[in-house]
Formats: sequence, C-alpha cells, structure tokens
Amino acid sequence: MPELRKDPITGRWVIIATERAKRPTDFLREPSAHAHGGFCPFCPGNEAKTPSEILAYRGNGSTPNSTGWTVRVIPNKFPALGIEGDLGRMGEGLFDKMNGVGAHEVIIETPEHEGTFSRLTEKGLEDVLWAYRDRIVDLRKDRRFRYILIFKNHGEAAGASLEHPHSQLIALPIVPIRVREEVDGAKQYYSLKERCIFCDMIRQEMDSKVRVVDENESFVVIEPYAPRFPFETWILPKVHESHYENGQMREFQNLSRALKKLVSQMDQVLERPAYNMVLHTSPVQEQTSAHYHWHIELMPKLTRVAGFEWGTGFYINPTPPEEAAQFLRNAEI
Amino acid sequence: MPELRKDPITGRWVIIATERAKRPTDFLREPSAHAHGGFCPFCPGNEAKTPSEILAYRGNGSTPNSTGWTVRVIPNKFPALGIEGDLGRMGEGLFDKMNGVGAHEVIIETPEHEGTFSRLTEKGLEDVLWAYRDRIVDLRKDRRFRYILIFKNHGEAAGASLEHPHSQLIALPIVPIRVREEVDGAKQYYSLKERCIFCDMIRQEMDSKVRVVDENESFVVIEPYAPRFPFETWILPKVHESHYENGQMREFQNLSRALKKLVSQMDQVLERPAYNMVLHTSPVQEQTSAHYHWHIELMPKLTRVAGFEWGTGFYINPTPPEEAAQFLRNAEI
Repeated sequence: MPELRKDPITGRWVIIATERAKRPTDFLREPSAHAHGGFCPFCPGNEAKTPSEILAYRGNGSTPNSTGWTVRVIPNKFPALGIEGDLGRMGEGLFDKMNGVGAHEVIIETPEHEGTFSRLTEKGLEDVLWAYRDRIVDLRKDRRFRYILIFKNHGEAAGASLEHPHSQLIALPIVPIRVREEVDGAKQYYSLKERCIFCDMIRQEMDSKVRVVDENESFVVIEPYAPRFPFETWILPKVHESHYENGQMREFQNLSRALKKLVSQMDQVLERPAYNMVLHTSPVQEQTSAHYHWHIELMPKLTRVAGFEWGTGFYINPTPPEEAAQFLRNAEI
Repeated sequence: MPELRKDPITGRWVIIATERAKRPTDFLREPSAHAHGGFCPFCPGNEAKTPSEILAYRGNGSTPNSTGWTVRVIPNKFPALGIEGDLGRMGEGLFDKMNGVGAHEVIIETPEHEGTFSRLTEKGLEDVLWAYRDRIVDLRKDRRFRYILIFKNHGEAAGASLEHPHSQLIALPIVPIRVREEVDGAKQYYSLKERCIFCDMIRQEMDSKVRVVDENESFVVIEPYAPRFPFETWILPKVHESHYENGQMREFQNLSRALKKLVSQMDQVLERPAYNMVLHTSPVQEQTSAHYHWHIELMPKLTRVAGFEWGTGFYINPTPPEEAAQFLRNAEI
C-alpha cells in the first residue's frame, strides 16, 4: 500500500508510491552535461566579457576584473530585476504590482570550467559558502530587500544555461510565498511547543537513523520524511540558527565537508545527476528567531515533473526516503 | 523595468521580466511528439490489454471492453494510490501519515491515436468533459475522498508517458495544499467584500480586454494578471459556480468550444506545444459556495523550470500576459 506522508513544517502531503518503488538505476536520466566547446564567459581570461565584478576572492596583487581569482561574483548579464529605483507599489483595479527592483547576481564558484562541487577542494567549496554569506551581509543593508534567495542549477536538465560552475543570488523586495509558508509553519509549531520544529526533527532523525545520510561535528544530512522528489536531501546545522549568514567559521568548514561529500555520494549513486540546490534561510530584515532553522535543500533532477504538480502542490514520489538514505550511505566514494 | 505582480487569489508574487520579453518563436521547444510506432494499449482493439473499463460511452450494442466506444475510462495500470482499505491515519513521532487510499484513473479521450483536442470534434471533446463530470459524481459518493484532481499531460515534455490522447483522475483522501490555499484565498476575499474574487476579476478583465483571449456565451478565456509561465491561460465560466460537476448542459457544450479553440490557437502560435491542463474545482465534500469559482488552467511547456521555483514558489515569466493574449487572439485558425 502506498503511503501518504505530511511534511510537518508546511503541511504538504506527498504520496510515497512504495509499490512502484524505483531504484537509482530505474530513472530515465537527462544528461547533466552541456554541449561542449565554444566560448565560456566565466573562464579566467574572459573577465572583460562579463559585467564588472561585485566581489572576488583574489590572490595578493591581482587586479579586479582580471585573472587570479578563486571565487568571483558578478551581476547577471540578463537580470530578472533592476537594482535602481524605488518600489512604486500600486494597485491596478483589484490587482497589485510594484517595480521589479532587486539584485540578480552570479557567483562563479571556481576558475576551473570542470570544477563541480565534488571536484572542488574543501577549501575551494568553503570559499563559495563564504561568498554567499558576504553577499547576504552586504545586500541586507539595502532596506528595500526582504529576501535573498541563493540557489544553484547544476546541469542543463536542471535549468543551467551555462556549464561553468556557478550559483545565483536574487535579492527580492518581497518574501516568496513558499518561504513565508515555511517560516510561518515553523512559527506555529513554536507557539504550540516552544521548541524549534527543525531541532525536534533533527533529534528524532538522529535517534532513528533510518533517514540519516551523513553527519559531522556541525551538520546532519537527511532524507526528509515527506520528500517531493526521489533523493531530495536536506543539510541542517545541528545547533539552532535562523540565519545562514550568522554561521560560525567552523560551521562553514563543516558545511563544505558535508556538501562535498553529499554531492560525491549522489554522483556515485545517481551517475552525476543534474540537480537544484536552494538555501533556505530567514528573511533578511527579520530578527534572529527561535522558530526558524536555516538549511540547504538539494534535489537531483531524476523525474520529469508531470506539470499538474504546479496547479496542486501535490507530489508522487516513487522512492521512499529510507531507501534513498541507504543508497547514499552505501555509496563508495 | 521588470514588474512584480501579485496573484490576488493566492498572494503569490511573480516577476514579469519585460526587458527580456520573449516572443513565441524565442522559446527553445521540446517536441510534443513521442517516438512513433509500437503497440498502443489505448487504441481500439486492444481493450483486453488494459484493466477493465469503469465507464465508457459506447454505441448501441457494443459490449464492454471491446471496440465501439468514443470515450473510455479505466483504472491506471500503475496506480499511485490503492482503492481498497481505510485511511489508517497515524503518527510517527512528530510526523503524520496515512494509507495511500485513493483512485487513479485514465480517461482515454478518443479512439483516434492522433485525436488531440484541436482535432477532436466539438461533440467529441464535449464527451470528454462529460466523462470528467460523470467520474466526479460517482467518486464523490465515497466519503473517504476529499478532492478529485483531473489533469492532462499532453506531450512527452509535459510528462505524458503514452501518446494516445488521455487525461488522468486522482481521487485523494486529502485536499492538496495549493488547492486549499486557493480556496481559502478566495474565501478571505469573500469575507471582506461579500463578492467572489473570480467574478470580480472576470468583470475587470472583460472591461479592459487586454488579457482576454476569447469569450463565448458561457466562458471567458484570459491570460491571468500574474501568470507563472509564458502563455499560461485560464478558462472561467461567466456564471458563478463552485463545482465543475454542477455545470449546465449548455455550459459543457460551450466549454468544449472554448477549449478546442484555445488549444488550436496555441497549436498555431506555439507550434503544437506540449502542455499541462488542470481542472481547478471545489473539494468534493464541501458545499456549493459563493466564494470559489471553478476553472481550467492550461500551461504550455515552453520554459525549463529552473528548479529553485520548487523551493520558493517564485517564478520569473519572460512573457507579459498582455502580449501572450494578443498573440493568441491573432492566431489564424
């Protein structure tokens, strides 16, 4: 009998279709690789072909917008939002709109064109995580921005249009609805119990261990109880913290280790899948809170989304998370 | 300057990225066509290869599970849910689950393997709409079911695994979260205004006309104000009604006309795109209401969803709905 499971934070129900359970090799995968060859604007030497850098980690003596960087942040050449101007909120009959004010940046993660997360050194990946943090700290000063969304599309099937390893940042004048829902869901639990729901979940998962993929000093890596997608995986800090940018230095080191290991496990078990990674953190203008707990969600692109999910928020997941956790734990990396 | 627009029903904000506005020919389309050849279990003559039919519209004298039908409804051979048993709601620490009880049916829309919505006769398509209605009326008697989800994935890129034209029905023991959100959003507006938000929207759209694609005696076809996807299109009944299955006979005729015309317009403008269609109707065990207004949402698959949308509910749409409406209105069909 298939199971219906409820995500305790958002209240979203998911079908875990155990009877047509899929093993990693059953998925019809779209290749994560892009067509090769051609000009790459993110490779060293082509700095002049991108907008001027906002931030770069560079060796001593190298000059901005030239080679010598390890991580480089630039404005998106085709931004979805414009950085200048005020919000201009207004109505249009019963509709509401505002100007598309915001920032849209690209974090070039490494000079290496083939430097995926599993191939970067732990220090190299840690630098990417610091760049996320530095950009958040800078952008949150702009009071127009209510949420800073950091995400990574890896592989063409996951929506990446350029192969060179990069993440994206979008600073928004609104809090996206699913973020609002997640933060409010956690708040509701806190009102009831005076405990963080993520902390409770971490305790329960570490006791039962069936959905735990990995842990280190600072982080636990789990398959969530009600995942929308096969092999959807969350990385959560063990010590409660609502805002990513408030992490301790030691935590960024351990996050790099956990993330590199997870992507390596996925590469091995799922044959280098395309994936999406999303940083879930508190809205920037909100105080540090006892109810929300930042984390990373990583979703390999293994199934074709059947589209009706858009209209309904309803998901059918053919892989029980307990099995996914076991496959990942057993990966030979 | 791009625009941020808010969907008045759900409160979802969307970026309308006017500065990289896309015309219909700009989309990199995945073909809607499937690989041809091979055995089709939905074609006439192969009735014995599918589970026994639940409902069929047949000519006089033809026997069940043989040829002679125009629309045929069968259980899904690989159901995501099982029809037998009770819900068995239970907790698992802080998690909630229940048995995956429900129905999963396939509506084979026509005996013609190539009989897409634009090629069916109006009467043929009307029969499909009646089959939706008949199955809802039958299944709602089962008090375990709280929502009946009817949707169609057309084309491989939209998630269809078989080419032969078909829709799907999933009867669920829960109300999916986005449906709940939409119904509750409409209810909130009603509490404030004592008017249906969809009725207000229809009036405003019919006044301004910029987002209206088509209308007939009973239906209006519009591009919504804050669409998630390019060419996302809604078909709404002009007269308020909360439940699809309560439609008047004349309305099913006019819905068939509107839907056939819309799909033909999309076929012409977007070169026969893959698409998803979702019927949005009230939860079956809820009374007829003054606040919710059933409708159909049709989303051509033109963009690759970049994945972070999953985590955030945040969409960037490169085609303003006013332009999409104009393209569709001007289609030569």
